[in-house]
Amino acid sequence: MAIRIFVTGGTFDKEYNELTGALAFKDTHLPEMLRLGRCRIEVSVRTLMMIDSLDMTDAHRAMIVEQCREAAEPRLLVTHGTDTMVETAAALAKALPPSAGKTIVLTGAMIPYAFGSSDGLFNLGSALSFAQVLPPGVYLAMNGRCFEWDRVRKNKETGVFEAM
Amino acid sequence: MAIRIFVTGGTFDKEYNELTGALAFKDTHLPEMLRLGRCRIEVSVRTLMMIDSLDMTDAHRAMIVEQCREAAEPRLLVTHGTDTMVETAAALAKALPPSAGKTIVLTGAMIPYAFGSSDGLFNLGSALSFAQVLPPGVYLAMNGRCFEWDRVRKNKETGVFEAM
Amino acid sequence: MAIRIFVTGGTFDKEYNELTGALAFKDTHLPEMLRLGRCRIEVSVRTLMMIDSLDMTDAHRAMIVEQCREAAEPRLLVTHGTDTMVETAAALAKALPPSAGKTIVLTGAMIPYAFGSSDGLFNLGSALSFAQVLPPGVYLAMNGRCFEWDRVRKNKETGVFEAM
Amino acid sequence: MAIRIFVTGGTFDKEYNELTGALAFKDTHLPEMLRLGRCRIEVSVRTLMMIDSLDMTDAHRAMIVEQCREAAEPRLLVTHGTDTMVETAAALAKALPPSAGKTIVLTGAMIPYAFGSSDGLFNLGSALSFAQVLPPGVYLAMNGRCFEWDRVRKNKETGVFEAM
Repeated sequence: MAIRIFVTGGTFDKEYNELTGALAFKDTHLPEMLRLGRCRIEVSVRTLMMIDSLDMTDAHRAMIVEQCREAAEPRLLVTHGTDTMVETAAALAKALPPSAGKTIVLTGAMIPYAFGSSDGLFNLGSALSFAQVLPPGVYLAMNGRCFEWDRVRKNKETGVFEAM
Repeated sequence: MAIRIFVTGGTFDKEYNELTGALAFKDTHLPEMLRLGRCRIEVSVRTLMMIDSLDMTDAHRAMIVEQCREAAEPRLLVTHGTDTMVETAAALAKALPPSAGKTIVLTGAMIPYAFGSSDGLFNLGSALSFAQVLPPGVYLAMNGRCFEWDRVRKNKETGVFEAM
Repeated sequence: MAIRIFVTGGTFDKEYNELTGALAFKDTHLPEMLRLGRCRIEVSVRTLMMIDSLDMTDAHRAMIVEQCREAAEPRLLVTHGTDTMVETAAALAKALPPSAGKTIVLTGAMIPYAFGSSDGLFNLGSALSFAQVLPPGVYLAMNGRCFEWDRVRKNKETGVFEAM
Repeated sequence: MAIRIFVTGGTFDKEYNELTGALAFKDTHLPEMLRLGRCRIEVSVRTLMMIDSLDMTDAHRAMIVEQCREAAEPRLLVTHGTDTMVETAAALAKALPPSAGKTIVLTGAMIPYAFGSSDGLFNLGSALSFAQVLPPGVYLAMNGRCFEWDRVRKNKETGVFEAM
């Protein structure tokens, strides 16, 4: 079973720039994470953008929607910053209803993978698994759980995704 | 959704004993891993044994089967050494056919979690996700994939679990 | 041999705040780092401030000087951000010439210790060692080397401390 | 200042072989550790052997002594298993008294560097620093301290090196 992974940035891929002392994006860590997880699913990774999800515009979302629509694979994973993950999920759900035949799972991380104690590897294993078995639809995989796109919100006080 | 996790040891929980210079078991790392993954599934963790799966006897397997049978939760995760994971899965499948109503997922790791570069966190995220959505049956979750208990073998040359 | 360690913050102790997505200071990691290094030198750690060294004022430096002057131990370590480490070293050297009988070593890190790939542990081992054997004076320990306070500059392009 | 580093194996360089489930040696991690520490000392690393120090014979020690004698650099670091580090130090001290003009520092680790929580990086920073400033002689650098070769023993109960 082949899964297409679209990378958009987010905390997942943030790094520490030692010359400026600030957080920044370079290349995605997805291939390294898949190697570490000894993942043997057939995946193809494509980086669409490398941005903080607070900087994501309608144009960015339109591009993500377009890429998901055009992907040959019926099962898709989108890595995304957690702050606006729900908004992007909604944009995807509106453009690609279940009848479109695509299972799209969005995931992210609260701590950058490049830091020692990230939740990213756990979330990646979780999201890839949900993406393999769930019926067409748009989902968020965070905190070991899977939510339908219109039944979830991020609690900004706790950083936890909650059903609603 | 509540999931019961049974810990049996395996590479997952091996540690380096700095006084003897050998690998050894102490306590399970499962709670720490669930914390790191910011897991919010309702889980209860119970350590059944702490052994290398090459040392697992029929008596050990009978105990695992009994614990799975008696667990109130219909969804179960068993951490297990990779070398004999398939044998334990077969023992579980014989005692608990799908009609028993239990979804049981076995998982493990190729590298101890206590070492920096483990696949354990990825596998844990993956196994917990499969355990939430798959129908009753016995499964192995490794390498990002999920196998039915009688359709998988570990390739001893590559360390990879393969469909058969 | 007893060594006093004064903590002032800097990259050494920066953490990732998962609720805000920004870098921030909480508690120092020095005790954890000393434990990891199995350090058996008699040290006492005191946190003077927790700031980015770009935010360090003359008042902050006066406080560091005063604390070093008053410390009973003749051998001192100061953890410090790298951007203005040289300025603080100069302030210390002016107030505490070799005749004051104090060996003061400043060190820091280019990558936060809380991130997986920090140089902090290496620098701490290095700085503590120089502090034990060098004669009274003010020194910077970075990149495995030790510099007298007035013979060093940080190359902002490369992030490397160089003799001059 | 140039330092020659001789690698002999020991816990420092032990790895987990995921196919056999046992500890084993492959290549040394020294170059990676020096990179991580942003070390800018001029060093040249040579692997003499890759063995557990409990397996070290008189022939191995004779080879280490010979290599140290022939090295052009007057400052040398030897990475070594902790169990027999004191014996090798004694062999070096007998063959290369202070009049030979060599400063030789032995160091090692209680936890393999490849595991997340190693003391190796701390010890490497410490040993390289002592090697730069101590007068000719043979020393052990462990636990943040430096011992003359004939004034130290490893406490097998605690794993700590103690003065005697």
